Amino acid sequence: MALLRSYVRGHWHTPDTEGAPLHDAVTGAEIARISSAGVDMAAALDHGRRVGGPALRELTFHQRAALLKELALRLTDAKDELYALSTRTGATRRDSLVDVDGGIGVLFAYSGKGRRELPNAKVLPEGPVEPLGKGGTFVGRHVAVPLRGVAVQINAFNFPVWGPLEKFAPAFLAGVPSLVKPASPTAYVTEKLVELIIGTGLLPEGSVQLVCGSAGDLLDHLTPQDLVSFTGSAATARKLRVHETVVRHAVRFNAEADSLNCSILGPDAGPGTAEFDLFVKQLVNEMTVKAGQKCTAIRRAFVPAALADPVTEAVVARLRKVTVGNPANPDVRMGSLAGLEQREEVRRALKALTDAGDVVHGDPTRVDVVDADAERGAFLSPILLRADGDRAEPHEVEAFGPVSTLMPYETTDEVIDLAARGLGSLTGSIVTGDADFAAEVVGGLAPWHGRLLVLDADDAGESTGHGSPLPNLVHGGPGRAGGGEELGGIRAVLHHLQRTAVQGSPKVLAKVTGEWTAGAPVADTSVHPFRKSLAELRVGDSVTAGPRVVHQADVDHFSEFTGDTFYAHTNPEAAAANEFFGGIVAHGYLIISLAAGLFVSPEPGPVLANYGLENLRFTTPVHPGDSITVTLTAKQITPRENAHYGEVRWDADVRNQDGVSVARYDVLTLVAKTL
Amino acid sequence: MALLRSYVRGHWHTPDTEGAPLHDAVTGAEIARISSAGVDMAAALDHGRRVGGPALRELTFHQRAALLKELALRLTDAKDELYALSTRTGATRRDSLVDVDGGIGVLFAYSGKGRRELPNAKVLPEGPVEPLGKGGTFVGRHVAVPLRGVAVQINAFNFPVWGPLEKFAPAFLAGVPSLVKPASPTAYVTEKLVELIIGTGLLPEGSVQLVCGSAGDLLDHLTPQDLVSFTGSAATARKLRVHETVVRHAVRFNAEADSLNCSILGPDAGPGTAEFDLFVKQLVNEMTVKAGQKCTAIRRAFVPAALADPVTEAVVARLRKVTVGNPANPDVRMGSLAGLEQREEVRRALKALTDAGDVVHGDPTRVDVVDADAERGAFLSPILLRADGDRAEPHEVEAFGPVSTLMPYETTDEVIDLAARGLGSLTGSIVTGDADFAAEVVGGLAPWHGRLLVLDADDAGESTGHGSPLPNLVHGGPGRAGGGEELGGIRAVLHHLQRTAVQGSPKVLAKVTGEWTAGAPVADTSVHPFRKSLAELRVGDSVTAGPRVVHQADVDHFSEFTGDTFYAHTNPEAAAANEFFGGIVAHGYLIISLAAGLFVSPEPGPVLANYGLENLRFTTPVHPGDSITVTLTAKQITPRENAHYGEVRWDADVRNQDGVSVARYDVLTLVAKTL
Repeated sequence: MALLRSYVRGHWHTPDTEGAPLHDAVTGAEIARISSAGVDMAAALDHGRRVGGPALRELTFHQRAALLKELALRLTDAKDELYALSTRTGATRRDSLVDVDGGIGVLFAYSGKGRRELPNAKVLPEGPVEPLGKGGTFVGRHVAVPLRGVAVQINAFNFPVWGPLEKFAPAFLAGVPSLVKPASPTAYVTEKLVELIIGTGLLPEGSVQLVCGSAGDLLDHLTPQDLVSFTGSAATARKLRVHETVVRHAVRFNAEADSLNCSILGPDAGPGTAEFDLFVKQLVNEMTVKAGQKCTAIRRAFVPAALADPVTEAVVARLRKVTVGNPANPDVRMGSLAGLEQREEVRRALKALTDAGDVVHGDPTRVDVVDADAERGAFLSPILLRADGDRAEPHEVEAFGPVSTLMPYETTDEVIDLAARGLGSLTGSIVTGDADFAAEVVGGLAPWHGRLLVLDADDAGESTGHGSPLPNLVHGGPGRAGGGEELGGIRAVLHHLQRTAVQGSPKVLAKVTGEWTAGAPVADTSVHPFRKSLAELRVGDSVTAGPRVVHQADVDHFSEFTGDTFYAHTNPEAAAANEFFGGIVAHGYLIISLAAGLFVSPEPGPVLANYGLENLRFTTPVHPGDSITVTLTAKQITPRENAHYGEVRWDADVRNQDGVSVARYDVLTLVAKTL
Repeated sequence: MALLRSYVRGHWHTPDTEGAPLHDAVTGAEIARISSAGVDMAAALDHGRRVGGPALRELTFHQRAALLKELALRLTDAKDELYALSTRTGATRRDSLVDVDGGIGVLFAYSGKGRRELPNAKVLPEGPVEPLGKGGTFVGRHVAVPLRGVAVQINAFNFPVWGPLEKFAPAFLAGVPSLVKPASPTAYVTEKLVELIIGTGLLPEGSVQLVCGSAGDLLDHLTPQDLVSFTGSAATARKLRVHETVVRHAVRFNAEADSLNCSILGPDAGPGTAEFDLFVKQLVNEMTVKAGQKCTAIRRAFVPAALADPVTEAVVARLRKVTVGNPANPDVRMGSLAGLEQREEVRRALKALTDAGDVVHGDPTRVDVVDADAERGAFLSPILLRADGDRAEPHEVEAFGPVSTLMPYETTDEVIDLAARGLGSLTGSIVTGDADFAAEVVGGLAPWHGRLLVLDADDAGESTGHGSPLPNLVHGGPGRAGGGEELGGIRAVLHHLQRTAVQGSPKVLAKVTGEWTAGAPVADTSVHPFRKSLAELRVGDSVTAGPRVVHQADVDHFSEFTGDTFYAHTNPEAAAANEFFGGIVAHGYLIISLAAGLFVSPEPGPVLANYGLENLRFTTPVHPGDSITVTLTAKQITPRENAHYGEVRWDADVRNQDGVSVARYDVLTLVAKTL
């Protein structure tokens, strides 16, 4: 039988050993063997640090983002290979869509976020420049730089494609190499995924490695620059978190572990309402997708006591229609668990749950299956229990399969307390048409959850559902759920970067960040910077224009022309009474319009468009008779990887005849790369 | 002898036991005894959760910020009491300035940050609204809410005032109660601090508690909603980090531990340069302030090999002038260590360091002191060592006293490698007049540091120095330094909040966040919202105005009037060739000026001023003949606690005759609370 390979130090390694067998979840047949024997973990980490890291750090955020997109396209082309293997894990085509397409979707999402929200640079300035002295000679700013280690990614068995990809995407975008360690039962799917990734030849060598089998002494070799992202059981998370090397080096450790997620039906949502149906449908869906093997699945369903019976009936009626069996058969709605061991674990958990409640649908010991052998395959019927909320077990025992417990509640306070008894969850949902109820419950649940969905008739058509982590929203939860955060857009990239506060003169700060900042020297004022393409323009290039006197007639005319006849511009007495103005003031819009008239360079040239403006503050009133001068300085230059132009952010500083700043803002332009 | 008291559950508790003696660091006399006997730790935590937390959560961020400022003023009035006690810890007046005034400064800073950077609300929406579906019915946003537990703050002995205050300020602003646990040797100063705080009567009961003495079983009672902030030795940090309850509940654990901080002199900075003198002066300063008992002090001084001798001579010459002795004596430059035990620890560390290098100034065993007894008081001479950078000890052994090791380096790469051998530090400094060298070293050091200072002639006048953590910059470091982050402005507030992604319809999201978002219902359109004071205005109040046709004549006139004759507005052929416009376009400034003319309500009223504009994007060109309509909707309302007005942020959406958005931005106004 074939042994799964690891990909380390630039080579595919086949262990020279017997290995442990892996079984087809549907037929029970052996499909591969697994072992990490012979993998030198220290050398693999070292390869990532010495080869992968430097190669990634040679690229900018945008260049890495572009590679992520290209990789996503190539994986999309090859995804049928992943689908085919996924069936053997017990997954239906619908399940694989979540795993495979969902995983590829994360790559696309991080590619887009990277291009839109990060600079096309190797260092990420974070937050504003902080003035540290009144004279402006001493300032501070945070910069975030890639850790010089390896992101060790320990994945769970339930999402062999999405799991590795959702950890890899932010690490890669950050410039940190990944070492992927899949859970054994479904490692053959991840092996194929990594084979496809390496096969594209797109990624710098060392940016992805794969270890199939035991992690061995991997963690012993971690340094303060490495990090660990773990998905799996709370018990394993605890063990890894206290690993001597992890603790000694304060290695960043992110865990996504057990979670007894809840779904709450609002008291308004009785039978006949859209929300009643949405609740029932979502609950059954969460129980059966991936045969309930989702860390985000609904384990606890809280319903108003008065609605407990009709909800039970409706859920049971729907569960009765769920066909279980061979996931390759299109008539089958729910496939198998990932293996017989997983089924045994679920059955053990069910023992505790059935002590605390009654089974109202399903049988832990038997199930009718379509097109399969119910004993050789890891099949289990969906099981709905009903229990009182004051029992401990439903809040503490996670049966990682198609299992949920329905519990009644009386008051809003009670259901908030019941939800908190999960001691920290990844996600919760509130299904209600009553926005006030929703807001109150969200407020009560928020401290205990990483994500909350409010499902109602308004959003049901577009809702991605209770169980779907999204790349742009945080995935993780406090307490039992591990206390970690994954995804959440650029937040997850920051997990792979070291944030460092840099203090110095504006000149030094500009050098470090690659962005011009107030007080830093201007680079070149001999040529109008609007005449320079990106090939010539440098941060700090600057033009000063003016002065222009703002006459009373200008203000009068602007009022009339635009219709902006606000009293501070038109009524001397009323304007004098305004505590901020003390007399007629020029319109803010007039100031910035005149400033544009001063700094513009009219002839066709590299500046293609002004597409926006940010952080505008009017800091001092401009009174008729005042004169204004504007200085425009190139602050940040962001060439696009896939276009003939890029963005240039300009600092605009408008000052009056006394040199006092009256308006300050960023002007956003598109500028051609060449003339 | 008096026993230090704890403040728990609303009462001062004096232990009914003998307690352990605490000694005056200068005279050796016993000054108090300490014990936490009789403190019910579980009840104290419970009191914080049940009494302090709810009271704090009743307040908005701005209300808490206002209390911080008031508290800072009251502590300023009373600070002489803290100064008097601080002398007994061995601190000179200059040392106390860092501790006492520095600590009070953190309160002021968080008060200001809270008012400027947080909403006047109880929930913090974080980041933008994320569209989750194309139809706009399903959106997401992160909200941050206070944890429902207690911030357990375990402090080090060296800053008995600053330490507790820098941890308390962000916790309080977040709405999370504090339990302060000072280190025993200087706990009598913290006891006085908490007595002063409680004595003001300003803070809600339960928002601050104090445990003097051993933490006992405190950590055993933590829940997933509590958090621990620890400052102290790496050894203790490791012990607490793996505490069974901390691990089981994934309790947030922030550590600020050992750190072998470096200071690097640039090759440009030879004798006679300003930077040479700055380096020498700063090094001596960091060695002697607080007798070197600062986690940010310089332990490793790296100098170009060619400059090693002159630097050594200059440092030694300066150290010779440092008078050691009774800190109350104004002639004394450096006081004592915090106690005889601390001196023994430093001497032990010095044994390892002197194996690896030569003492070039000072004597570990004796020191001349002014106005004190050198044996009874914990005095130690400043000690400068010189060693080769390839020895292990200087990078690993922290002598927590007036001790530094000077090491030569040859190349930039070498000094970056040497710095990294500290395996993670809180701070480092680069002293150079060469901005390129500075930027290169910052790039190499950043992954290993939480803060980096570049000191040169430009910023020296305003620089706060190598050793000073600042409230607006991150304090913490990777690896050996504990892997934590404190301060850093609002980042530290977020450490006390749970971030939760909320998904739902725009209507529900608006309810949850208290901010209007696109797609949420508008509240009232019957009265122009500019006619409403804050007492009447609600988020979602809205006005739609227009249409107004933008004529060719308007564009021509605006070009001439403002001087903005950019070709896209004035030259039909050139404009037609522009890929984004395809013909003459109206100026963006014209569009927003006309929009203001449409939505303005001219007569005097509650709207006092338009003070700015944010996030403006021009999304579709407006061509002559197009007509525009603007909708202005109240998005966020921020009444000021200490003024008769507040800020209102308006969503401005300008659309053309086809209903396509042409410009979108936030208008920022000041609005009176009442008419």
